[in-house]
Amino acid sequence: MTPTGLQRVVAEFLGTAFLVMGVIGSGIYASKLSTTDDGLALLENSIATGAILVALIIAFQGISASFNPVVTLVDRFLGHLDTKLMFALMGAQMAGGITGTWLTHTMFEKPAFTISTNDRFGGHLWISEVIATIGLLLIIFLTIKSDNARYVSVAVGGYIAAGYWFTSSMSFANPAVTFARVFTDTYAGITPTSAWPYIAAQLVGAALATGLIVFLIKKPTHSSKELS
Amino acid sequence: MTPTGLQRVVAEFLGTAFLVMGVIGSGIYASKLSTTDDGLALLENSIATGAILVALIIAFQGISASFNPVVTLVDRFLGHLDTKLMFALMGAQMAGGITGTWLTHTMFEKPAFTISTNDRFGGHLWISEVIATIGLLLIIFLTIKSDNARYVSVAVGGYIAAGYWFTSSMSFANPAVTFARVFTDTYAGITPTSAWPYIAAQLVGAALATGLIVFLIKKPTHSSKELS
Amino acid sequence: MTPTGLQRVVAEFLGTAFLVMGVIGSGIYASKLSTTDDGLALLENSIATGAILVALIIAFQGISASFNPVVTLVDRFLGHLDTKLMFALMGAQMAGGITGTWLTHTMFEKPAFTISTNDRFGGHLWISEVIATIGLLLIIFLTIKSDNARYVSVAVGGYIAAGYWFTSSMSFANPAVTFARVFTDTYAGITPTSAWPYIAAQLVGAALATGLIVFLIKKPTHSSKELS
Amino acid sequence: MTPTGLQRVVAEFLGTAFLVMGVIGSGIYASKLSTTDDGLALLENSIATGAILVALIIAFQGISASFNPVVTLVDRFLGHLDTKLMFALMGAQMAGGITGTWLTHTMFEKPAFTISTNDRFGGHLWISEVIATIGLLLIIFLTIKSDNARYVSVAVGGYIAAGYWFTSSMSFANPAVTFARVFTDTYAGITPTSAWPYIAAQLVGAALATGLIVFLIKKPTHSSKELS
Repeated sequence: MTPTGLQRVVAEFLGTAFLVMGVIGSGIYASKLSTTDDGLALLENSIATGAILVALIIAFQGISASFNPVVTLVDRFLGHLDTKLMFALMGAQMAGGITGTWLTHTMFEKPAFTISTNDRFGGHLWISEVIATIGLLLIIFLTIKSDNARYVSVAVGGYIAAGYWFTSSMSFANPAVTFARVFTDTYAGITPTSAWPYIAAQLVGAALATGLIVFLIKKPTHSSKELS
Repeated sequence: MTPTGLQRVVAEFLGTAFLVMGVIGSGIYASKLSTTDDGLALLENSIATGAILVALIIAFQGISASFNPVVTLVDRFLGHLDTKLMFALMGAQMAGGITGTWLTHTMFEKPAFTISTNDRFGGHLWISEVIATIGLLLIIFLTIKSDNARYVSVAVGGYIAAGYWFTSSMSFANPAVTFARVFTDTYAGITPTSAWPYIAAQLVGAALATGLIVFLIKKPTHSSKELS
Repeated sequence: MTPTGLQRVVAEFLGTAFLVMGVIGSGIYASKLSTTDDGLALLENSIATGAILVALIIAFQGISASFNPVVTLVDRFLGHLDTKLMFALMGAQMAGGITGTWLTHTMFEKPAFTISTNDRFGGHLWISEVIATIGLLLIIFLTIKSDNARYVSVAVGGYIAAGYWFTSSMSFANPAVTFARVFTDTYAGITPTSAWPYIAAQLVGAALATGLIVFLIKKPTHSSKELS
Repeated sequence: MTPTGLQRVVAEFLGTAFLVMGVIGSGIYASKLSTTDDGLALLENSIATGAILVALIIAFQGISASFNPVVTLVDRFLGHLDTKLMFALMGAQMAGGITGTWLTHTMFEKPAFTISTNDRFGGHLWISEVIATIGLLLIIFLTIKSDNARYVSVAVGGYIAAGYWFTSSMSFANPAVTFARVFTDTYAGITPTSAWPYIAAQLVGAALATGLIVFLIKKPTHSSKELS
């Protein structure tokens, strides 16, 4: 079926809320339980995040499963949706994200919102975030434009779980989730001062990724076949 | 093939028994072996639980693979089965769960049944269990109503593995498994006093989830397309 | 294509050799590296075993991917192969397993074969091994008889990874692998004295599982539909 | 669509760069965070490597997803591509790999390149690397020649994650990645002196694997069916 715009908006709201719960909640619990080794808490956080991404994308793919404004932006650029729906989905993602922060805090008996003191500021982190976003968008759009579209859930979950480890910025790669993580002074948080450069880096990554995606999915013409 | 009701009952019995063995058995062994870090035991328990869920749902999906009375309840509400079969499947799940507890204890040389002293009582845990159940039912029913129905095993396994980490209630989200966990005074147990509010919260979650599911899978009519 | 018997024999030899390398090799390395927590070594061993099973079954499924004499026995019972091929495949599995032990030892600079001193003897372990084998055979045969046949790799890998945790016997569930593990005095080994009851328990499990499988995959007749 | 040669070259460059970032970056971060147990750092490194391989192969499979000169060599031998394209892809893999090293170092605030002091020299490691490469090539080519071709991502990711554990050589099994790892004096590095025998062992493994692959995928003729 083709979902309605309202169904898509609700799907993006719910999915992003659960994604943020997965990210922040597992960060809270992992850092509380695993105090003997810093890597162990990140391993738990990364596995939980990858696992819930796989689950959410499998479930919501038939309706709407971006949960990420830069993905929605590239979708708009590629003509998958119109401007009005783009803004509606982005709004739902931002609202879902912040709702996810609040629900997580409720589950763990914390105040509704606290401002993060987790500093993530530095040029190498911004480069990392550009790279993380390029990778995520390549993974998503090359997959959904191929015969493997059905497996985009596993690709995204695997990529983000790995991204926690191979980038220095923890691969946020998502403005809605970055924004939601400002409001939690826990393991997965990010200070307001650090959040804006992260989001800027994600937008730069999105621009660079779009160029690569357009090149890689372009149907070949006769003259471009010289190497094949 | 369309399985008979008796085949479905036996499938639910066996599947729930193995699910409970997966949950309780891995909890016993993980907490016995991993004594240096509290998170490590939960990591092992969550990976084993997610992994056996994937295996069981792949194997039993063609016959019957709910292993969970609230899933069967929503199945009944959506008209997938009649009331008589609903009660037969729920009975099989409850019997399978408690059989799983007994077999686990036999494998680990423990008395057949012991009453849990693992207190899980508190308002934040009940909210957590409502959220955990909403998430599980969204994952299951959105998936099986979509082109991704074949991957519901991976979605459920991923969701529950993550749920051990992002909720404070350990994402039981299953009355039959909750009941079976009362009878084990080990890592994965829950006291009788804590079990009833958990089951109540699961039923509340089921009611809320059903509303969301019905909205999200409803075929669009002309007038509801305004946003798309 | 339909593979020849010789291709199937070679596939079973190679697959079982790599499976045993996965089991024993990861056991050696995990127990060498992870000395701070007993659970951690088992977590590494279980993840590596599950992961290589998924890989091997995906790759060899089109040729022959049992790697396990009790699976081949049930295949024979269900009429999937004749007696001559059954014995050829079983021989290949036994030879592959022991070759895997030898190659693992070569990779880790150990003598070709050493006899295990890892005692796994006791009634609760035999019950555990019966249950582990019933579960494995249910997972395999219900899956390959269903529309999920293509995902038997993930089901088996997930089941065995979980089995390391939820059974007390470490879910050998495979006479060829049990035999191969006698000849390694390392983490994953089993003493000769313990091996025979394990294999007997696996055969008992196979008999019980076959009954359940036949019941669950039987096409319904009119009179057996009363509950559906 | 059939991708152009240039699209394939760019895909191999990007994919190998991200693969090397996944390998080296997660090695840097894991060994920095997990200092309490040697196995834990390898567990994190192996999970991240397996996860990014799954993601990259799902995304790039429709264009070009070898990321490995020995895979491309066997592709050439089997007639999947011509010599000119083979060299172009190999060049892209080598360039992508070294670019991945540089980008990883940038993300982690390290000099662009440093020469590894991580010695991996010894006959048992070369045997291990031969075995690791045979396994990888069997997994890839048996899978893509079968009805499971769509799941080669999961097979390769699972195999390599396991390979970190069951081989003593850490299953490089890839000359481009081996070369790229020379230029990082971090966890995942390899000294120049150790790199050449590794690459030689990978070529020996490729030759042996090719023989096995050709035998196993050969369509049976009447006279070769005697065992089936």
